[in-house]
Amino acid sequence: MSAALDELTRALAATAVARDRAGGTAKAERDAIRRSGLLTLAVPTAFGGQGAGWPEILGAVRSLARVDSSLAHLFAFQHLMVASVLLYGHPGQQERLLTATANGPLFWGNALNPLDRRTRLTADGDGFRLNGVKSFCSGASDSDLLLVSADDADGVLRVLALPTARPGVAVLGDWDNMGQRQTDSGTVTFTDLRVEADDLLGPPGPYGGPAASLRACVAQAILASVYLGIAEGALAEAAAFTRDQSRPWRTSGVASAAEDPYVLRHYGEFHVAVAGADALAERALAQLQQAWDGRATLTPEQRGAAALAIATFKVAAARAALDVSNRLFEVTGARATAARHGFDRFWRNVRTHSLHDPIDYKLKELGAWALTGALPEPGFYS
Amino acid sequence: MSAALDELTRALAATAVARDRAGGTAKAERDAIRRSGLLTLAVPTAFGGQGAGWPEILGAVRSLARVDSSLAHLFAFQHLMVASVLLYGHPGQQERLLTATANGPLFWGNALNPLDRRTRLTADGDGFRLNGVKSFCSGASDSDLLLVSADDADGVLRVLALPTARPGVAVLGDWDNMGQRQTDSGTVTFTDLRVEADDLLGPPGPYGGPAASLRACVAQAILASVYLGIAEGALAEAAAFTRDQSRPWRTSGVASAAEDPYVLRHYGEFHVAVAGADALAERALAQLQQAWDGRATLTPEQRGAAALAIATFKVAAARAALDVSNRLFEVTGARATAARHGFDRFWRNVRTHSLHDPIDYKLKELGAWALTGALPEPGFYS
Amino acid sequence: MSAALDELTRALAATAVARDRAGGTAKAERDAIRRSGLLTLAVPTAFGGQGAGWPEILGAVRSLARVDSSLAHLFAFQHLMVASVLLYGHPGQQERLLTATANGPLFWGNALNPLDRRTRLTADGDGFRLNGVKSFCSGASDSDLLLVSADDADGVLRVLALPTARPGVAVLGDWDNMGQRQTDSGTVTFTDLRVEADDLLGPPGPYGGPAASLRACVAQAILASVYLGIAEGALAEAAAFTRDQSRPWRTSGVASAAEDPYVLRHYGEFHVAVAGADALAERALAQLQQAWDGRATLTPEQRGAAALAIATFKVAAARAALDVSNRLFEVTGARATAARHGFDRFWRNVRTHSLHDPIDYKLKELGAWALTGALPEPGFYS
Amino acid sequence: MSAALDELTRALAATAVARDRAGGTAKAERDAIRRSGLLTLAVPTAFGGQGAGWPEILGAVRSLARVDSSLAHLFAFQHLMVASVLLYGHPGQQERLLTATANGPLFWGNALNPLDRRTRLTADGDGFRLNGVKSFCSGASDSDLLLVSADDADGVLRVLALPTARPGVAVLGDWDNMGQRQTDSGTVTFTDLRVEADDLLGPPGPYGGPAASLRACVAQAILASVYLGIAEGALAEAAAFTRDQSRPWRTSGVASAAEDPYVLRHYGEFHVAVAGADALAERALAQLQQAWDGRATLTPEQRGAAALAIATFKVAAARAALDVSNRLFEVTGARATAARHGFDRFWRNVRTHSLHDPIDYKLKELGAWALTGALPEPGFYS
Repeated sequence: MSAALDELTRALAATAVARDRAGGTAKAERDAIRRSGLLTLAVPTAFGGQGAGWPEILGAVRSLARVDSSLAHLFAFQHLMVASVLLYGHPGQQERLLTATANGPLFWGNALNPLDRRTRLTADGDGFRLNGVKSFCSGASDSDLLLVSADDADGVLRVLALPTARPGVAVLGDWDNMGQRQTDSGTVTFTDLRVEADDLLGPPGPYGGPAASLRACVAQAILASVYLGIAEGALAEAAAFTRDQSRPWRTSGVASAAEDPYVLRHYGEFHVAVAGADALAERALAQLQQAWDGRATLTPEQRGAAALAIATFKVAAARAALDVSNRLFEVTGARATAARHGFDRFWRNVRTHSLHDPIDYKLKELGAWALTGALPEPGFYS
Repeated sequence: MSAALDELTRALAATAVARDRAGGTAKAERDAIRRSGLLTLAVPTAFGGQGAGWPEILGAVRSLARVDSSLAHLFAFQHLMVASVLLYGHPGQQERLLTATANGPLFWGNALNPLDRRTRLTADGDGFRLNGVKSFCSGASDSDLLLVSADDADGVLRVLALPTARPGVAVLGDWDNMGQRQTDSGTVTFTDLRVEADDLLGPPGPYGGPAASLRACVAQAILASVYLGIAEGALAEAAAFTRDQSRPWRTSGVASAAEDPYVLRHYGEFHVAVAGADALAERALAQLQQAWDGRATLTPEQRGAAALAIATFKVAAARAALDVSNRLFEVTGARATAARHGFDRFWRNVRTHSLHDPIDYKLKELGAWALTGALPEPGFYS
Repeated sequence: MSAALDELTRALAATAVARDRAGGTAKAERDAIRRSGLLTLAVPTAFGGQGAGWPEILGAVRSLARVDSSLAHLFAFQHLMVASVLLYGHPGQQERLLTATANGPLFWGNALNPLDRRTRLTADGDGFRLNGVKSFCSGASDSDLLLVSADDADGVLRVLALPTARPGVAVLGDWDNMGQRQTDSGTVTFTDLRVEADDLLGPPGPYGGPAASLRACVAQAILASVYLGIAEGALAEAAAFTRDQSRPWRTSGVASAAEDPYVLRHYGEFHVAVAGADALAERALAQLQQAWDGRATLTPEQRGAAALAIATFKVAAARAALDVSNRLFEVTGARATAARHGFDRFWRNVRTHSLHDPIDYKLKELGAWALTGALPEPGFYS
Repeated sequence: MSAALDELTRALAATAVARDRAGGTAKAERDAIRRSGLLTLAVPTAFGGQGAGWPEILGAVRSLARVDSSLAHLFAFQHLMVASVLLYGHPGQQERLLTATANGPLFWGNALNPLDRRTRLTADGDGFRLNGVKSFCSGASDSDLLLVSADDADGVLRVLALPTARPGVAVLGDWDNMGQRQTDSGTVTFTDLRVEADDLLGPPGPYGGPAASLRACVAQAILASVYLGIAEGALAEAAAFTRDQSRPWRTSGVASAAEDPYVLRHYGEFHVAVAGADALAERALAQLQQAWDGRATLTPEQRGAAALAIATFKVAAARAALDVSNRLFEVTGARATAARHGFDRFWRNVRTHSLHDPIDYKLKELGAWALTGALPEPGFYS
């Protein structure tokens, strides 16, 4: 597995700067992910998958994010969609969808954005019709399956799984943003799409208590892992540049940039930030795995403890990545701004991705716990 | 004058996002600057120019930088080159070069980078030959005149002014960097270029005492003014987006993003940073003008006082611009990352431009003064 | 005037460390202030005072705050109380109270805290009786006159001026706080105190429109001036210690602490923070004076502009003072923590004083203006 | 053990505020530590001690530091002195000194400050005489044994262990500093003190390779544990105050301070900082223990890895403690500055203690490792 991950990481690294500039769907790299065998990491062995734990899965996500946080995001969401089926679907759905996922392997895309309520399910015989639009559908392009959310007739958000190729689905390919440029996080439209009853996940569905609400924990842990990978990648590329190419400032009195006292102090600060996020990651992922393993009997308190550890990790990782990616230029110098190095992509990527849900409100939740012991209210973002 | 500046600012604003993406030489916009009449701002009235003061000139730079910091930089360097002729050239050179500048009007480019010592002057009859390469030659493309530096036979850096069209000059157009993308800050090569004796500025030349060393003060004040313009532009565009397009976060409990307590607090911090830099700008530019007006009898102490005020302004402006351009996304939200808004250009521009010379060493100089009263040693950067 | 201020500043400086440790009422120093002639600065010349402007008055406050921010606060509140009489009182009250102030000179104390609503005015013949308790009554001890607020029968806050010696007033002398230790900001109780009708200031009183609401502007400008003085005092004492007593760190490679690159950079940051606050001070006090001079016809917009400039100054000054007073130890070293130097008093003083009203909400108001142009709502704190 | 620690923690907490104000030697509390049985934690079981590991010992230090960082420091140094005997002393010295320590139990004091080179050893028959002065001798007052450093005739720093009661030792009791007020970190003088040959620790002594240099790792881990305890104590006391006593700001629109969005966000930031330092602590102490257990064959790389983990922990802990102790007032409000709460002691304590050796140079070492993989040079501070 490690060899497959290493090979994939190297392949993504080789073209990351050029692909960031180009944007669009990374078809060749998505196919390399398909070939890597890593799409089945989260699928239980009973369904033909690898049954890996979250620390391993998110470690792979983080490795990829060091070199290409767009593809790391798409790779990570594969496992989030598998987790969603395990958390929301009934046993028959789990078997049907995940066996297919493992056999393909099939690559999942996302059309679940719960903040965009423009999709509607209407009754249609023994099934439904789906109409409407979803934004921020990461990985829908070139996907085999889609996880979709839509309001039913009662205004309740339902979650569906269906083949991307089913007639009535249109993936617009309209993502053109300043960062995470190859996540294909654009628009998907649904036009009179036929939905079978068993396409709706559940019971338990998305409101199935503490266990079902672990989906937000997985999602937030993915975000944090991508941020931390970005921080590590930025630090590694900056250090290589400082060592090999930076010049000492004319009044520094030292022979190389790597001896400059200010440069060294900045690197010390980068290290402390990244190491702190890394130590919090280890704790958070262990707590996530523990909650996941015990999800059949998960209490709100256990779920809350995992959510808090993940939120702490996420804030620390976002800050480390924003800080390193912003300040790396102060330790590399003006020549590091040449477009061929693509060093600005780290900042553009984390700056974009860290807006998924506001850090301010994550801090508010953590503060409420620190002050009063209140647990974050489970939802799609906490 | 204000009408011309307003018109130019509007013209640059209209296409700034697209041109940032395209990079390259902004020929149409450079011609618009030529037509604006503003290229002669710094030329004394005796030579047919407008004889404007630095507060006015740098106010115009800052206005342009709010919408397009690349063109603002090129516009500003025009006035730096004019100032260089006034500070380094003898009266005949001043008259010859600046009368031509006013009559053209001629647009100056820069090939002076004193950190790149690869250009050599060798004797050639009653003149010289110039050979070698210069990097970071902002505005050399499409320029009419160039200010160039080169080592003479004694290893002393000399400064020359010559027509860009003179045979032997090649402007490579190889600038492709992550920010300040239309400053054409690429490479210029000189091949057996004939240099007349009077092309060398001076006496007094670049080492002509406190007065000549005011060039660095003008250069640093330009940088700071561009940074502050970037900060103001980023703040203005962010505020418009928050007011018109941002959505309140789902748990914020408020009806609009403009009422969110965290959003408001961020804007408060942006305002304090920008207002502080603005107040320091007013002081610094007044001191620069005073030193400029009294340059015939300038003492090292008077020169030092101006340099310190400008350095203080520069650090505050760089920090304000880096902070606002980095954090504006936290007050606008994820949809503000769409490439069509181009909001990342503020960060890419100031991040690139603020590496001209290290903020760490500027702080060191300011600290030395605060601690011991030591004045910064005059040079090309202080 | 300057000589009197210099003498007073020197006198306070000589004993400031010992008095900070002792706390309590600085009777000798209060008498020195009385003798200085400076208590009448804000009293109009028509009433026998000096009619000084706010830039001058607050410059004096700031000078004193560099060495003793407790006494600077008491000195400043004298002028705030005089301003209150001018803004709230009718012409006869102005003449009566301020002529007495100038003739004494009389030293005013404060018992106005509008957040503490435990004082009640009840009708008593042609006057009133006052009962209740006020907290945070800075300068009430050893005062000659008191400005007091109390709720009348309708629950409206009224403002009164009366002699501290009037029977029924008890100044408890119970202030024992970690900072601003000699401000006597303790409790005052009122027991069946007789209040004459003309002791109630007004009309116009405290709700007399934009002009009356300038009191909050004066109060906030005082706070900011004290903070900035603390920052300057901390910086000056730290620099003297670094120059004279600090030792270079064993691995620094330099011969004196004043050459240490990290020490110098910290001082550079201190300088930028203090210089920024100073530049904002100049603007804010000029706007305050302009609003003051035009108060007869002051518009809400003019009042708002002054309030915003003062709030910006206040935030910058508080941050500069907190930062310098906290970090000065990193440029002086472990031996600077000896109690005899009293260097912690700067932090304790600004930390205590900056809680007068929350910086977070000041930032919120500034942000609202930056985002939407909304003016802060006039009150006792904005 | 845990019961003893709990009891001791409660006892110290009960009087901590009053003792901070009083300063001086905490004789009763030192005796409570003696009675607690915890002085023998680090002494190997072979010598009658408890043979506890560093995570347990430093966990106890941190618990005490939450309520009283002065006594926590003295308690911690006991274990550092025991470690010094184990690292520097030959087997006979270990047995002699540590058996006595366990039997007493004896309380060690420190007179080792390697930056103060005013102590001299001169030959005297079969032993030596010691003369001179040492500063920063934490815990020397009321101690039973002292660890002392002195230059020998060759200018080499030697380390000695001797009874505090031996004639010629004078503990001056002159510590009066702004923080860590009961650490008795004052001056010790030595006058013609007789030193036996076996009082000099070693071989191996202080320069005994990677193993001996672990002393600095223990010392730095102690500092970091004290800082983190201070951060946790400040956070806990602040939260209790906010919950029980703080009032919502008048324009906050919420019913209690514990619902204020800014207050909650500050607590969130405090939590992230403290949690990050805690996660780094766990790693660092595990690495310290591993290096300690394998010290017989410790390589420079293993020693370096432990030193780096501890340095990372130390920087994070110092920053967390400085930040929480400085900003806690912004979440508690003005009334929290009453001296009876003693809330300023957290800042005064960490501000003082964090100057032991400069954070700037710790960051420089960490940066050198992050940039080039260089290990910190072993010494008394790294």
